[in-house]
Amino acid sequence: MSERRLWERYQKYLCGVESVGLTLDVSRMNFAEDFLERMRGPLDKAFDAMEALEKGAIANPDEQRRVGHYWLRAPELAPEPALTREVQDTIAAVNAFSADVHAGRVKPPTAERFTQVLLVGIGGSALGPQLVADALGGPSVDKLRVSFLDNTDPDGIDRVLATLGDALAQTLTVVISKSGGTKETRNGMVEAERAYTRRGLNFGAHAVAVTGEDSELDRTAKQGKWLRVFPMWDWVGGRTSVLSAVGLLPARLQGLDTEGLLSGARDMDVATRVRDAVKNPAALLALMWFHAGGGRGQKDMVIIPYKDRLMLLSKYLQQLVMESLGKEKDLSGAVVNQGIAVYGNKGSTDQHAYVQQLREGVNNFFATFVEVLKDREGPSLQVEPGTTSGDYLLGFLLGTRRALFEKDRESMTLTVPDVSARTLGALIALYERAVGLYASLVNINAYHQPGVEAGKKAAGVVLQLQRQVVERLRAEPAKAYTAEELARAVGAADEVETVFKVLEHLSANAQPGIQREPGANRFEARFRAS
Amino acid sequence: MSERRLWERYQKYLCGVESVGLTLDVSRMNFAEDFLERMRGPLDKAFDAMEALEKGAIANPDEQRRVGHYWLRAPELAPEPALTREVQDTIAAVNAFSADVHAGRVKPPTAERFTQVLLVGIGGSALGPQLVADALGGPSVDKLRVSFLDNTDPDGIDRVLATLGDALAQTLTVVISKSGGTKETRNGMVEAERAYTRRGLNFGAHAVAVTGEDSELDRTAKQGKWLRVFPMWDWVGGRTSVLSAVGLLPARLQGLDTEGLLSGARDMDVATRVRDAVKNPAALLALMWFHAGGGRGQKDMVIIPYKDRLMLLSKYLQQLVMESLGKEKDLSGAVVNQGIAVYGNKGSTDQHAYVQQLREGVNNFFATFVEVLKDREGPSLQVEPGTTSGDYLLGFLLGTRRALFEKDRESMTLTVPDVSARTLGALIALYERAVGLYASLVNINAYHQPGVEAGKKAAGVVLQLQRQVVERLRAEPAKAYTAEELARAVGAADEVETVFKVLEHLSANAQPGIQREPGANRFEARFRAS
Repeated sequence: MSERRLWERYQKYLCGVESVGLTLDVSRMNFAEDFLERMRGPLDKAFDAMEALEKGAIANPDEQRRVGHYWLRAPELAPEPALTREVQDTIAAVNAFSADVHAGRVKPPTAERFTQVLLVGIGGSALGPQLVADALGGPSVDKLRVSFLDNTDPDGIDRVLATLGDALAQTLTVVISKSGGTKETRNGMVEAERAYTRRGLNFGAHAVAVTGEDSELDRTAKQGKWLRVFPMWDWVGGRTSVLSAVGLLPARLQGLDTEGLLSGARDMDVATRVRDAVKNPAALLALMWFHAGGGRGQKDMVIIPYKDRLMLLSKYLQQLVMESLGKEKDLSGAVVNQGIAVYGNKGSTDQHAYVQQLREGVNNFFATFVEVLKDREGPSLQVEPGTTSGDYLLGFLLGTRRALFEKDRESMTLTVPDVSARTLGALIALYERAVGLYASLVNINAYHQPGVEAGKKAAGVVLQLQRQVVERLRAEPAKAYTAEELARAVGAADEVETVFKVLEHLSANAQPGIQREPGANRFEARFRAS
Repeated sequence: MSERRLWERYQKYLCGVESVGLTLDVSRMNFAEDFLERMRGPLDKAFDAMEALEKGAIANPDEQRRVGHYWLRAPELAPEPALTREVQDTIAAVNAFSADVHAGRVKPPTAERFTQVLLVGIGGSALGPQLVADALGGPSVDKLRVSFLDNTDPDGIDRVLATLGDALAQTLTVVISKSGGTKETRNGMVEAERAYTRRGLNFGAHAVAVTGEDSELDRTAKQGKWLRVFPMWDWVGGRTSVLSAVGLLPARLQGLDTEGLLSGARDMDVATRVRDAVKNPAALLALMWFHAGGGRGQKDMVIIPYKDRLMLLSKYLQQLVMESLGKEKDLSGAVVNQGIAVYGNKGSTDQHAYVQQLREGVNNFFATFVEVLKDREGPSLQVEPGTTSGDYLLGFLLGTRRALFEKDRESMTLTVPDVSARTLGALIALYERAVGLYASLVNINAYHQPGVEAGKKAAGVVLQLQRQVVERLRAEPAKAYTAEELARAVGAADEVETVFKVLEHLSANAQPGIQREPGANRFEARFRAS
């Protein structure tokens, strides 16, 4: 296609949302001229489903739940006045609490002010807050600095706590778990609590929870006299919870513009309810995903924002897209193995990492570039006559887009005016709706995650087996077992590999004191309690 | 396959490297019993090619270059005494310089000590150092703290510099570019230099370069009387340069165990020269990649280390694998479009992001788990009776591995004793060799990157066009142009879309003072110099 024809195509399909200044350019996607027309029927159905969802239908049939993340930024649209009030009250409570913290009215027992937030959460309870904190925060704007415990890695926990150091006395810990029973988060909480206790600090006086009513975490918080508990609702999924207290509380504490986040999302919601694909960037995105991957996820989605602050966007979208769309069965129960793999970091940095493969290698992807018009606060210096660092950034984006297109690699470009709270809220809402519409196009439930239980359950079996193994070894401290012998001894002969793995791990750590004695080979090693 | 059969398979194929304590478990890859035998011929050829490479053959024929990253950790193996000496001298120089910095013998003009390193580099000159810094560093071990400018994003640069703040006076800036002409790095350097100058600091007295002899950067450093220049060689590719001065200098300055990095890599090199796939983890990895993707990259490589410190491993491997293997043509010139897409972050965190899709969705991947036996320094508390956070981490790894296997999703598990310098060096060397062997199996050149030039060139055209556009607008400040008119006026009618994009960007920023006047529609907007 000639440059001139591309310019015509660019103008014809450029889809803009005036209220937030965002545009979506799909001119470098090679869809046929009649594609949008052909998809009109399926898209209309998707709009119907979305409309029903927004009105409070049971859009997550497996879990018999409503799906209400759109109400978080427009509480007046919630199907019942009680929900409207809950959302409004929560926003008000987050704002009031944050103001109290900033003013020192809510303060730690042994210091003047809270200066740090330690967020304990994982998945939907961490990725959104991390994205917001990194995109909008920085040394010149943060009222409190935010760090994260988002895993059950002991060394990782130690490192974050060591970085806080003495500042723990001025640290407000925010524990977030919708169900209140997520083990990684529980572990992070217990580890954090011990760190406070060791310094003679009262954990409850430094702690806040965001969780569902009467969850395990809710009860822990109330028993421990924590500072506050903010609500989470079963009609908000973890991966779409960033505009609930889950994301608003840490952002507000950090000093960020949560009103902007909400208004940007709200404005994008308005724009993406329009039932015309060429005027609705969420619909256009969903259609392009469908086009690129044949409605079967045959191409990976590579997300490359040309902006350091948006580096976590791909990670956030990886969760939103893959957990929503990666489904075994469709709504009729047929096995479909849907999904779209998502990866990416940032440009132009990624050009030096994997654009080589994108241009020349296996053509199993489509790229989404994110362009930010505003370079920085204040003027730029010229790095060479007439050219700034920001000019280079745009040049590299356009150059890479062209280099890919020359080789029949497809791409889209999202352009936003800046990385502000409004823009970020809009991007979040854009992808939330695109995911919902695409799910309808391929007839799946975007709002459950049945596939994550199996791994958790299997993990429970491993831990149970470990307890049995340790008990057995301790019962006979004089005796050394091979993994085979021990598996049989605990009545789990088939699970010898798991027993072996558990023993290797236990013996590599000081506790609970399992010693390894080398054998004729690795598998003949013997283990005993010491 | 029964658990019992899996245990037998596990034992049969477990591939260990005693010297570094690493094992590779491929029991959950569904290769046929005769697969390894069938691949013996091609693998032997790959070993031949690797042997020739290590002896100094022109292993990168396109660029007529030798490929010598294995000599970096075993200089005595270099094909010429002069090379041996250069490598040894560089290591000694890095060590001596770092010792001088730590002791305050090399110090900034206006402060007692250097306390910070600011590394300016991108791609191969940043990802390795970032991996090492994050995996091995932390508040309790860092002699100097390290931060990075790894992009040409003005706002990103501002944020890093703002975080350094007054500490810039104690900051040693290390500018790394093998060619010495990488624009992002040049821009980062110019921006950093201005930050020093604005504070009345002499940049050269705070700056060190790592670059090829007589490169643009080398000349800049010498003219500016920088503290030191460390060499880079054309026989080390960027993506395999982490054990040259590129990675050793920042790591040593940070206070990390660079000898351990080198010895771990050296030991892994010894282990991966063994011409027996079941005893050689690099060969086994390469064969498993071949098996999983049919030798055509049909499956993505998902890397999930269960350890926070290894979170950047996937990003590092994304570059190493995709830039090495993502090639249009094979060595005979046939179009093959090879490559393997790589993504991942860390477990168990990723279980809450995309394991839903891995287990149930599109089966377009194979997973590589990385297990670390050692949980943390010192003892662990029990998060519930008999169970630590680290036990959970292993439980989740084993549980997810099982949950995937139940659904015919393949995975491998790499197990290492800890995240030490030796282990990290071993992992780096393991993947370097696996990539080299796999490239031979699919008959491509792993050591060039011809596909990255097109984008850079196209970017150059954009910047040139921008200069013409600005010049034209300034020549007639009274006149306002549409993008169409301006493209024609500068003799680039076909490039109107690029002109439009450039104008939108320029008018969104204070400089060089291009004003946008709205038109009948977005494309009819007019632009003028102000």
